[in-house]
Amino acid sequence: MNEAAAAVLLYPQFSEYELSVALSILMQGGKPILTAGVEGGPVKGEAGLICIPDTNIEDLYHEEIDSLVLPGCMDIMIIADDERWTAFLKEIESRMTVIAGISSSPLLLAKAGLLKGKKYTAGLNEQAREESGVFEKENYSEDLVVEDGKIITARGRGFIEFGNAVGEALGLSFDEGWYKG
Amino acid sequence: MNEAAAAVLLYPQFSEYELSVALSILMQGGKPILTAGVEGGPVKGEAGLICIPDTNIEDLYHEEIDSLVLPGCMDIMIIADDERWTAFLKEIESRMTVIAGISSSPLLLAKAGLLKGKKYTAGLNEQAREESGVFEKENYSEDLVVEDGKIITARGRGFIEFGNAVGEALGLSFDEGWYKG
Repeated sequence: MNEAAAAVLLYPQFSEYELSVALSILMQGGKPILTAGVEGGPVKGEAGLICIPDTNIEDLYHEEIDSLVLPGCMDIMIIADDERWTAFLKEIESRMTVIAGISSSPLLLAKAGLLKGKKYTAGLNEQAREESGVFEKENYSEDLVVEDGKIITARGRGFIEFGNAVGEALGLSFDEGWYKG
Repeated sequence: MNEAAAAVLLYPQFSEYELSVALSILMQGGKPILTAGVEGGPVKGEAGLICIPDTNIEDLYHEEIDSLVLPGCMDIMIIADDERWTAFLKEIESRMTVIAGISSSPLLLAKAGLLKGKKYTAGLNEQAREESGVFEKENYSEDLVVEDGKIITARGRGFIEFGNAVGEALGLSFDEGWYKG
């Protein structure tokens, strides 16, 4: 059996830079990835890169993956209203060893119930977090990256630290110096 | 007439993270981009993102663009041996106001003659630079980012500073705080 992959969720308007260092560290560490959209067809990132996901969340065999990486997204409210994403997260949670979401994507994790009782951060302001009605206020942290059990959350400007945290949580070996200016 | 775009060259094994902050800054500043491959068809980045270029360098109207961004690439020697890339760079140089290459991509600029008499840096070690036979040794700099006239070159780990330099050279307004951990 092949080594389990990290699934990287690609929704419209995903943030390329927030994802890029985590992707590079997965590559450095030899961790296979499977990018996954919904429905099929190309997905355009917020900065204009048009990507073809390797697969769709509907077609992904859960045995193929052991971890999830969620980029931020300009239109996260739209993505969060699409129940296919949250249903997928609920279904797959127990099989995953690492679930990592940066910037606005912790909203998806919260909506799917994956942040219950967990410390987290998110690149959403207090008003947005409260209005969403899905975040536990008392467990919010201002830290750049927060790890609680299998859940890693990060603020967007912590995208390098987020990548490092994902790599370390997966036990990968990689050179952090690639990303240090 | 629409505002001229920045052309972003996408070759096989391009480095997603090295490009990502520059792309994000172009987006923040409202600068249109055109990603360009050769031949058509998807292009896979070094960390596994499969991208569809907006166009090909053969089909790009030179009037559509005023600047070039070149990501690094694991296989730059192969790309540099493909004369379509260097021919394109030679042809288009005089029309461009900014030509920016990070990591290994200054090799393409040097091979096309664009670094003649210019200060530059590159993410290639001394042996690789010498063996290529296209770099002027006396104009090499160890700096993370080097600007000389319209040419911007950078080392890979300076990808955030590279993005900032591209944005500033194009006179864009953007918030650097997005990328500061």
